[in-house]
Amino acid sequence: MKNIILLIMDGLGDRPNQELGNKTALQAARRPNLNRLASNGTTGLMSPVSFGIRAGSDTSHLSILGYDPIKYYTGRGPFEALGLGIELKSGDIAFRANYATVKDGKIIDRRAGRVKDTDSLSSDLETEIDGVKFIVKSGVEHRAAVVMRGKNLSDRITETDPHSVNSPPEFARALDHDAQFTADVINKFLTRSRKILENHEFNKKLISIGKLPANEIMLRGAGKIPEIPSFKEKYGMNAACISGTPLIRGIAGLAGFTNIRVEGMNGRVDTNYKNIISAAVSALDKYDFILINIKGTDIAGHDRKPELKKYVIEQVDSVIGPLLERLDNTLIVVTGDHSTPCSYGDHTGDPVPVMFATNGIINDNVRCFDELSVSTGYYKITSNDIMPIIMSYSDRAEKYGA
Amino acid sequence: MKNIILLIMDGLGDRPNQELGNKTALQAARRPNLNRLASNGTTGLMSPVSFGIRAGSDTSHLSILGYDPIKYYTGRGPFEALGLGIELKSGDIAFRANYATVKDGKIIDRRAGRVKDTDSLSSDLETEIDGVKFIVKSGVEHRAAVVMRGKNLSDRITETDPHSVNSPPEFARALDHDAQFTADVINKFLTRSRKILENHEFNKKLISIGKLPANEIMLRGAGKIPEIPSFKEKYGMNAACISGTPLIRGIAGLAGFTNIRVEGMNGRVDTNYKNIISAAVSALDKYDFILINIKGTDIAGHDRKPELKKYVIEQVDSVIGPLLERLDNTLIVVTGDHSTPCSYGDHTGDPVPVMFATNGIINDNVRCFDELSVSTGYYKITSNDIMPIIMSYSDRAEKYGA
Repeated sequence: MKNIILLIMDGLGDRPNQELGNKTALQAARRPNLNRLASNGTTGLMSPVSFGIRAGSDTSHLSILGYDPIKYYTGRGPFEALGLGIELKSGDIAFRANYATVKDGKIIDRRAGRVKDTDSLSSDLETEIDGVKFIVKSGVEHRAAVVMRGKNLSDRITETDPHSVNSPPEFARALDHDAQFTADVINKFLTRSRKILENHEFNKKLISIGKLPANEIMLRGAGKIPEIPSFKEKYGMNAACISGTPLIRGIAGLAGFTNIRVEGMNGRVDTNYKNIISAAVSALDKYDFILINIKGTDIAGHDRKPELKKYVIEQVDSVIGPLLERLDNTLIVVTGDHSTPCSYGDHTGDPVPVMFATNGIINDNVRCFDELSVSTGYYKITSNDIMPIIMSYSDRAEKYGA
Repeated sequence: MKNIILLIMDGLGDRPNQELGNKTALQAARRPNLNRLASNGTTGLMSPVSFGIRAGSDTSHLSILGYDPIKYYTGRGPFEALGLGIELKSGDIAFRANYATVKDGKIIDRRAGRVKDTDSLSSDLETEIDGVKFIVKSGVEHRAAVVMRGKNLSDRITETDPHSVNSPPEFARALDHDAQFTADVINKFLTRSRKILENHEFNKKLISIGKLPANEIMLRGAGKIPEIPSFKEKYGMNAACISGTPLIRGIAGLAGFTNIRVEGMNGRVDTNYKNIISAAVSALDKYDFILINIKGTDIAGHDRKPELKKYVIEQVDSVIGPLLERLDNTLIVVTGDHSTPCSYGDHTGDPVPVMFATNGIINDNVRCFDELSVSTGYYKITSNDIMPIIMSYSDRAEKYGA
């Protein structure tokens, strides 16, 4: 049996960039180690979730790890909350939330003038009502997440965001009988929140400098945290996650991974690449399966910066030399969770390169790791196929039949 | 967002033909424009419906357009009726029908001597009984379609074709209680039809020249016209269809496409190729998605004529130059709906070449459009994957997750 390192470069897939001589970031990058890995196994193209699907990092990570998003992706609320670093438990109800501005009973700005630094608001909104705990955490600008933790909660409730200005903010309504308690508790929370926000020092200050107050919190995207079978249960492996991105750590946490903190790891392009790989290699003593997520490639893609994306790939390449010495006992899998082409600035449904490197298995004819080179490789798969192939190449799969 | 032209060459896939130096029709054809398109995007092999399935044009077009045939293909009756150009409505019940010869109460020829030109019979059989309208349309030789339109109709009824000679023609029986009304009305229709056919001038003439009369119409393949969500509803696109083939126009009509008529378009090998492509290019101003079906490749395959199939492909190639000038704003997708190898003379389950051409996306290593060349391209997919890939490449897909 071999241990596994699954290295996901977020948003790795790219399209031709004029700035890079019509090459993708991966084609343009100096990547001797990635190419050496590609020469030591099989490669191919992987479509996240399915062909042509513009997967998010949430749905694609679920799918890559063997959790069918159709079953386990319960909406934006839970995954937004995970992304803000809230530790969720099965049964929690999570919402995406917006701070908004209400005047004379009507919403006049759904983003409260893109208010910033609302941590003092969110911490003051946290409370417990009728045995239900409310966790509130601020995100970027006007965004936040609200989590309800308690018994008998349901996500079958309406949003309180009317999605238009000049309408009054709404109360939550139950969509079925079982959700009445949840709706009642939310509405008590909203009534209480409005009072607190109205008189909050933070908002008084905003008004005093002529800005819009964040005097309403609107909830949407309600979702129940799914009960997902642990990775250990599914695959018999002790798993760890190394990622500077709260969303990825959150998903790994839900699946029972240990999240390893690494000195200098920050989920940005200036993360400490060397420490990340060192931590992964050390963790091989203790864990069977190590998921690494490098976020920089995705950030560069969203920011439409091909040179930066190339830089991030070169940084990763420069530190993965030690993995090449482990191929006797370790399966190294490298891929992306989706494509974020710099020319597009967002996720696309383009397939992503993938490789499975270890000693002893077939080496296909591919000697370079990039979109075009691997397109003549062994596999044309979707993310659902990754874990079964990993289980087989690491000598961990059970036989199906005799 | 880009507009889309989906060019389906019916039965495009082929096998090696001795007459063409062991090349497929596509390999043998002079096809500079198809090759240029292949150089401007990604290519691959597409298996209609699924790998190895010998799809019909009906099931494959449904699947390519994103309508799962398992769910929406309700039998041969409805699609035979569509193929004869009957405009169907949700809830209609449609049958395939045969004219047969009955003597002394028993069927002696299930095809009435392959009778021809029965239009005068079918039009005289049209009627209305108990509020149910019967539409009858003759097809090739002894074939016809019968459509029932009215309220409370069911397709849970038996066939009236005993499928053997020397048996009496049957009446319809209800397979469940709700179908009794339908069976009763059909049987009234059959009783009436027998009288009309017995005394029909057309049959008297046949008998007078020593031929078998078409004095029975046998019904089979009952199917209810499915309620299918419109293409606009599914994909948010205004869609048009350009096809000389009633079956394809019928399927497109069911999905809410506008069927565009084109001067000289006839669904045969001598259709006006130039006008078809011109009409598609003009339609780009008004429609987001244009489906073109060229039937000639399939006809040549069924007729086992490799040179003719090559000719049809060359005709198409010679007129698609204008599409190459549209690649900035248009996604051009070219494929077949199934393979009709000339050496086989019918549909096979062989995969079909496919290409997605537009500016800005990755160009894979494939520079020629034919079965072998595209087999080293980007995709090995089924027809179910076509629409998601189209939506992604045309910048129309919603993100799944965040």
